[in-house]
Amino acid sequence: MRNIKLTIEYDGKDYNGWQKQPNKLNIQGEIERAIFNILHEEIELIGSGRTDAGVHALGQVANFKTNSNFPIEKLPLAINSQLKNSIVIKEAEEVDERFHSRYNAKHKTYRYIINNSKTGTAIYRNLEYCYPFKIDVEKMKQAAVFFEGEHDFKAFKSSGTSGKNSVRTIYKAEVRQEGEKIIIELTGNGFLYNMVRIISGTLLDVGIGKIEPNEIPKIILEKNRQKAGKTLPAHGLYLVSVLYN
Amino acid sequence: MRNIKLTIEYDGKDYNGWQKQPNKLNIQGEIERAIFNILHEEIELIGSGRTDAGVHALGQVANFKTNSNFPIEKLPLAINSQLKNSIVIKEAEEVDERFHSRYNAKHKTYRYIINNSKTGTAIYRNLEYCYPFKIDVEKMKQAAVFFEGEHDFKAFKSSGTSGKNSVRTIYKAEVRQEGEKIIIELTGNGFLYNMVRIISGTLLDVGIGKIEPNEIPKIILEKNRQKAGKTLPAHGLYLVSVLYN
Repeated sequence: MRNIKLTIEYDGKDYNGWQKQPNKLNIQGEIERAIFNILHEEIELIGSGRTDAGVHALGQVANFKTNSNFPIEKLPLAINSQLKNSIVIKEAEEVDERFHSRYNAKHKTYRYIINNSKTGTAIYRNLEYCYPFKIDVEKMKQAAVFFEGEHDFKAFKSSGTSGKNSVRTIYKAEVRQEGEKIIIELTGNGFLYNMVRIISGTLLDVGIGKIEPNEIPKIILEKNRQKAGKTLPAHGLYLVSVLYN
Repeated sequence: MRNIKLTIEYDGKDYNGWQKQPNKLNIQGEIERAIFNILHEEIELIGSGRTDAGVHALGQVANFKTNSNFPIEKLPLAINSQLKNSIVIKEAEEVDERFHSRYNAKHKTYRYIINNSKTGTAIYRNLEYCYPFKIDVEKMKQAAVFFEGEHDFKAFKSSGTSGKNSVRTIYKAEVRQEGEKIIIELTGNGFLYNMVRIISGTLLDVGIGKIEPNEIPKIILEKNRQKAGKTLPAHGLYLVSVLYN
């Protein structure tokens, strides 16, 4: 069987997240339906991971197996013709039979965008989280560095999710300002449930002086969700890319 | 009477343009209604110029006269509270009684965004014009320079619009690439009807080899609309800023 890897962009606004679920519009299900329309074959689309309702992706990765010999270079436009414009297959590639988009993912990069104008933004209202009060970006940059490395990120996952191992490695944690936008970018070997949104909320708390940058190591060590910041809303979050070996 | 200058951002997608017209959702009318709700006074909002249906603005300017003594620093959020999220008053400022946002405008800057990925974009589908074929951006840059200076831009206005003077000065015409985006930015003392969208269409024709960069001066001189490129769609266009003395 052929194994096909897709790179996918989507606007999360109108979807109840990546994962297939009955009676709720979801991205996985929409793409499976579109592929069925093209290949006339029921496939199982394996994503690199779920994204929550409202979260966007610039480069989600998923794979599926098929017996079809549909030409790979024509596949993206063919599938896109069966999708709403809010989901776009950017690339399709034939990969080794053993490739698994979840198990083989090495790095993931997420981005969180805060719009820090006093009034908010009209054009990007569904693509950025508006926070109108004064933010000290330099402090956020200082704090971000403390997230880098291998840590138990138990304080930065939503409570209620099943326990197991909450140790992850963040290779890069960066904060930058572009005009009204404050952009948080995290690259790691994996992320816990809501981890990027909670780290972003914690960095925002640093930016507004609620937490000092050098308190971050202690918050990590204490492993107490209550000491970290709020979970920021979904519509500011982007899955940017998933890297494989 | 006080004269109030507003700087306005809007997502043009759901509006039939700036100008007030009966039974059609328009930006001028929405803001006048919002101001009425706050100041309880019927005002006339004078825009720096119209924008067409679907065109966005990052910094449209408009002014109105009022007898109200509503505090100026609270005005943007007060008006915004009465507007849909797709229109945002970014700033309000008290200006000289003689200030007129249309007559006193010295420079305007417009931006046109082409998305040049093969598949188009999901997230920015309403904010960028997707053109999937190969574009030579260097040629577009060479061609753009020829638009700078004082010219009769008759070839670059939509036919059917009333004649009069079509001489305008473009101070800067720039093309740049940012990832998948090709961004055209024009600053001038004024623009004819559809002029930015037609210049953008002409530059795109240069990018795909239909027109050579050094043919631009001839196209300008011939003043024949048929020799210039197509009018690109509204949703890629932004009024970026309006400058006054």
